[in-house]
Amino acid sequence: MTDLDGRILGHRGEPADVSAGPERCLSRIEELFEKLTDATRDLPGPLWGVGIGVPGPVEFRSGRPVSPPIMPGWDGYPVRERFAERYGAPVWVDNDVNILALGEWRSGIAVGHDNVVVVKIGTGIGAGIISNGRIHRGTQGAAGDVGHIQVVDAASVVCRCGNVGCLEALASGGALGRDGEAAAASGRSERLRVALDQHGRVTAEDVARAAAVGDPVAITLLQHAGHRVGLMLASVVNFFNPSLIVVGGGVAQSGDHLLAAIRETVYRRSLPLATRDLVVQRSSLGALAGVIGASTMVLEQLFSRDSLARWLTERRPAADLSA
Amino acid sequence: MTDLDGRILGHRGEPADVSAGPERCLSRIEELFEKLTDATRDLPGPLWGVGIGVPGPVEFRSGRPVSPPIMPGWDGYPVRERFAERYGAPVWVDNDVNILALGEWRSGIAVGHDNVVVVKIGTGIGAGIISNGRIHRGTQGAAGDVGHIQVVDAASVVCRCGNVGCLEALASGGALGRDGEAAAASGRSERLRVALDQHGRVTAEDVARAAAVGDPVAITLLQHAGHRVGLMLASVVNFFNPSLIVVGGGVAQSGDHLLAAIRETVYRRSLPLATRDLVVQRSSLGALAGVIGASTMVLEQLFSRDSLARWLTERRPAADLSA
Repeated sequence: MTDLDGRILGHRGEPADVSAGPERCLSRIEELFEKLTDATRDLPGPLWGVGIGVPGPVEFRSGRPVSPPIMPGWDGYPVRERFAERYGAPVWVDNDVNILALGEWRSGIAVGHDNVVVVKIGTGIGAGIISNGRIHRGTQGAAGDVGHIQVVDAASVVCRCGNVGCLEALASGGALGRDGEAAAASGRSERLRVALDQHGRVTAEDVARAAAVGDPVAITLLQHAGHRVGLMLASVVNFFNPSLIVVGGGVAQSGDHLLAAIRETVYRRSLPLATRDLVVQRSSLGALAGVIGASTMVLEQLFSRDSLARWLTERRPAADLSA
Repeated sequence: MTDLDGRILGHRGEPADVSAGPERCLSRIEELFEKLTDATRDLPGPLWGVGIGVPGPVEFRSGRPVSPPIMPGWDGYPVRERFAERYGAPVWVDNDVNILALGEWRSGIAVGHDNVVVVKIGTGIGAGIISNGRIHRGTQGAAGDVGHIQVVDAASVVCRCGNVGCLEALASGGALGRDGEAAAASGRSERLRVALDQHGRVTAEDVARAAAVGDPVAITLLQHAGHRVGLMLASVVNFFNPSLIVVGGGVAQSGDHLLAAIRETVYRRSLPLATRDLVVQRSSLGALAGVIGASTMVLEQLFSRDSLARWLTERRPAADLSA
């Protein structure tokens, strides 16, 4: 929850499983949201708007997810209508990485940059894109789906999309956990074997923790992942010529090995002109980027030229405009 | 030359060698331009503006080429100032593929599309990008430099940029000519050998002509080139989610083999959501796309909100604004 200047008044968060479907997820979000509004009840002024990010493509105009691959049951679900009816305020829904990008652009590391690519490396890999100071969502709201770009050193790993050599099958949090687990099971990494014994599986966080204390196998895994993300980004830099790449998501927050490998590959494989002033940085807002981004989206939409024109024509007689 | 509605009043064109440097190139362009203005001398009204496209990155704000790789002597050359002083009219300079994209968007196959990628396959390979209905030029004006994106089935061909596996080293007009010449020299294609004997070299046009009459080696060369362009475009589709890809340039105008291979690879390697309504088409304006695009650029800039605001404040006292 923010005020109309985008200042954070309060926030709540917890892990959620989108694959449980919209009914369970959104009910829980409504509970958290109402605890938050209860806690800030003494604040003046009404609820001006609600911004929501979901981990999949969204048709921005209607506020509905479009064939989101990791969100069964969400295709076409009327997220906007549900919240608008419940809270009596306008609602905007967007892809979560677009919202991260807006957050970094409004008050994070991307302030002042007109052309930005924000890459989130989590369970999957996605990107938020800012072109000429505006979010580029693409025709189906599917822009930034970089996890299924094929990278050159592709091993023969088959991706869940059915193709081989997809970035996501090689460098996502899921891929890191899988490769870390293999290293643990084969005895190549003692530290990862301990993690496997303790939890019955190895996660990307385990790999990052092991790398942070110098485990050579874990460091190599992060370097390989970074190299592959860097190959994808080198294509993106040649195509899009951003001034800033922001790397976010759980895997990116964990130490410098991944980011160093990304930087090295981007600078080596992109054209010199496009990397002349290019900066590759870690996300600066962390967990709050989503809150700030959603608030920025709502403010942008509330006070856009189109919205203001609509207000003027709907709420005042046209004759008043000359006053 | 067009009127303020973008209707073509006349045009002149001839091949030019940009590597001869700005002085020789631009002098010849001035000659052609003055012949054109002489021929349309009886038209009413002044010259409102001049639009110029060059085959390399341009800093749009200053109208100067920026480290253009195939244009020795042009780096930082004041193209805008030269024409503005000579003709006493405002001048805008942009990358030539951006201008093609604007032309197709204004009155070609891209009318009504908000997110478009125009790929020109000529001596090199470049792209013009439209995001949310506006040209996306990137930070250094270098956006769309897709010729140096690495493609997966990369042979070990070394590109003039120094990297291996660049698209341009495998699928440009230059690469087609080189591979066609090898096929001619080794006797694999009788038809290409005839071309080699006649002109001492094989060009991309020779390969296209041979393919059009059924030469199997030439057809295979075009299919391989199309496949590689398609691999690059599949990445671009996942990242950018356009509704339309336009394929232009000399090589693309020559028969269907290239375009068919591009389409097949794009649809196979991109995500289904991003290709749901995606159209891949040949450029519709041919040689006139540049004329229409340059005119569109001038009209957009002349009558932009910023320009109009500048006119109002510079030509009328501020007090007049309240009238």
